[in-house]
Amino acid sequence: MSLAYEVLATDGAARRARLETAHGAVNTPVFMPVGTAGTVKAMTVEGVAATGAEILLGNTYHLMLRPGAEVVAKLGGLHRFMNWDKPILTDSGGFQVMSLSDRRKISEDGVEFASHIDGNLFKLTPERSVEIQHLLDADITMVLDECTAWPATEAEAAESMRRSMRWAARCKDAFIDRPGYGLFGIVQGSVHGELRRESAAALIDVGFDGYAVGGLAIGEGQEMMFRVLDETVPALPATCPRYMMGVGAPADIVGAVGRGIDMFDCVMPTRSGRTGKGFTRRGEINIRNARHAEDPRPLDADCKCPTCAGYGRAYLNHLFKAKEILGAMLLTTHNLHYYQDLTSGLRDAIEAGNYARFAAEFAAGQALGDIDPL
Amino acid sequence: MSLAYEVLATDGAARRARLETAHGAVNTPVFMPVGTAGTVKAMTVEGVAATGAEILLGNTYHLMLRPGAEVVAKLGGLHRFMNWDKPILTDSGGFQVMSLSDRRKISEDGVEFASHIDGNLFKLTPERSVEIQHLLDADITMVLDECTAWPATEAEAAESMRRSMRWAARCKDAFIDRPGYGLFGIVQGSVHGELRRESAAALIDVGFDGYAVGGLAIGEGQEMMFRVLDETVPALPATCPRYMMGVGAPADIVGAVGRGIDMFDCVMPTRSGRTGKGFTRRGEINIRNARHAEDPRPLDADCKCPTCAGYGRAYLNHLFKAKEILGAMLLTTHNLHYYQDLTSGLRDAIEAGNYARFAAEFAAGQALGDIDPL
Repeated sequence: MSLAYEVLATDGAARRARLETAHGAVNTPVFMPVGTAGTVKAMTVEGVAATGAEILLGNTYHLMLRPGAEVVAKLGGLHRFMNWDKPILTDSGGFQVMSLSDRRKISEDGVEFASHIDGNLFKLTPERSVEIQHLLDADITMVLDECTAWPATEAEAAESMRRSMRWAARCKDAFIDRPGYGLFGIVQGSVHGELRRESAAALIDVGFDGYAVGGLAIGEGQEMMFRVLDETVPALPATCPRYMMGVGAPADIVGAVGRGIDMFDCVMPTRSGRTGKGFTRRGEINIRNARHAEDPRPLDADCKCPTCAGYGRAYLNHLFKAKEILGAMLLTTHNLHYYQDLTSGLRDAIEAGNYARFAAEFAAGQALGDIDPL
Repeated sequence: MSLAYEVLATDGAARRARLETAHGAVNTPVFMPVGTAGTVKAMTVEGVAATGAEILLGNTYHLMLRPGAEVVAKLGGLHRFMNWDKPILTDSGGFQVMSLSDRRKISEDGVEFASHIDGNLFKLTPERSVEIQHLLDADITMVLDECTAWPATEAEAAESMRRSMRWAARCKDAFIDRPGYGLFGIVQGSVHGELRRESAAALIDVGFDGYAVGGLAIGEGQEMMFRVLDETVPALPATCPRYMMGVGAPADIVGAVGRGIDMFDCVMPTRSGRTGKGFTRRGEINIRNARHAEDPRPLDADCKCPTCAGYGRAYLNHLFKAKEILGAMLLTTHNLHYYQDLTSGLRDAIEAGNYARFAAEFAAGQALGDIDPL
């Protein structure tokens, strides 16, 4: 294995661990902010680091189209390009090809598609995806897979998953092993337990530095998502990090950590930060709502972030009404702090053997709902 | 006088001084970033302070419409609302009423207008403008005036100026004197030296804490602007700060300081920061230009700002092409640093008796033009 991974404590299925990469250590459970096109939207890297984030996710699809993987490599890699010296995980590009590009055509070899930016044609194969992620200098490379659409028949899910497993083996062959750099496989199989176990076994047979669970949080709902985790996680090696891709809402993260997941990424805190949704210990609020217009209180009285320390809801409401960039900056800062506080709290709880109590208190806080208007 | 003002050094007409306000000292010559609607666009207040800015300008017109002066007052004033604890100067609202609002109607009493946001009707009189600025808790209040359009006949300019002088006297009557808070008069008179001198004399007769030169940089060109300054500044008291409103380009500031102006404000560094124009010691560059797409060098090799320290032109070019908010954040940061470095350099030069050399070196650097492509 090229990535050192050590489980420091467990509490039931929940794990508190540390992953060592070429650009530093990552303490898990961890939330990775999404740095789509080489920037966590509306944030400086100093601001991202100040939230407590130890690792970012970069999007292969966006970066291969603009500015191009070879350009990023020539400029010293993604870390130097975007001035982030901590670890970076890149996705394979497969998910965005399916959700964003035009005229995509999937075959055994890979996927051909037209860029959503200018219509130019590209081809992404397992080998090219690994090469791009190498050019970007990703600490953690993800295998190219197909995120099976939901719902899918068992036959469709099986065919899609088995092709992804053949692609995973090709990615392993293409990956250049280096100390501190690793390659993660991705379990597919939709909501079918048998297929998930078959997928996990196929990946273990190839051998990866970590194992992701893909194809969830795409419409199946939290209950089914948790059931799939219950059926999948036990089939994954206890000695490797487990990553649930594209997830999720705070309650999803708390529940998935209790089922043995270590790593998460999601656009939710950043995207919400630009549309006016704030995450708090008492649930979500829409800062555009008129009830906040003259309310001097912070978003979340228990939050220690710079936004809650320096600004009231009235100011944030004003910034969003006036379409000021600072609104997105301040709310994204808060939301990312919220997510980092959540995973930091989970780490502490697991170390103390208090995961269950933490989860219960989290749920009770969310159920309270927002503070009453003044 | 309610604002302490001390001239520390002079070099020809250029002055190095210090202005003391209720929220701290301002070293002049000073550039005031524009915080239009209670935010310097695309900047945190920490980021603005880190550029070296000691005072911001707030816009009465924008804030009276949204969120409303009484709302800001209820929330503790503009400093607390926007989390900026240093001095704030507010304009009177008159300039934006003329340039932004619909269906404006000017009379001896004041100006009636429809909000550009929702069409609601407002009236701004000298008394109401001063009251609003009091509610905002501005350290420096500006008198309500009419920025005489350019070009104007001498008769039009005289009529407009004389009404502004009557309004200035009403503003003085309405202003509530407090230690650390001051009221500035505004000289009008278009490009007519006689009218400018008449206006200055009228203001001095009323008595203000500072004297602004308004109605410039609205199309008359730099040569005529400097001529008006040459005819106006000698008519202003040597013992009070002089403020040239809405100016300007770096070369305008250097030239005006040499003519005895102490204070400046302009949207240029912030607006340009959002559209891709960067200010450098070798002139202006458009970061969207393809020549920068693979250039790892900073915007300005001699700049110590966080943008130039951490990012290359290629990255900034990428951010602007990808329409990423961080592009505006980083370029605005650089541009504000550039303006603060410029005024800091002017202060040092005046103290050392080197204004003329500084101005010559500034002009020589600008004339060099941007570095050659790689």
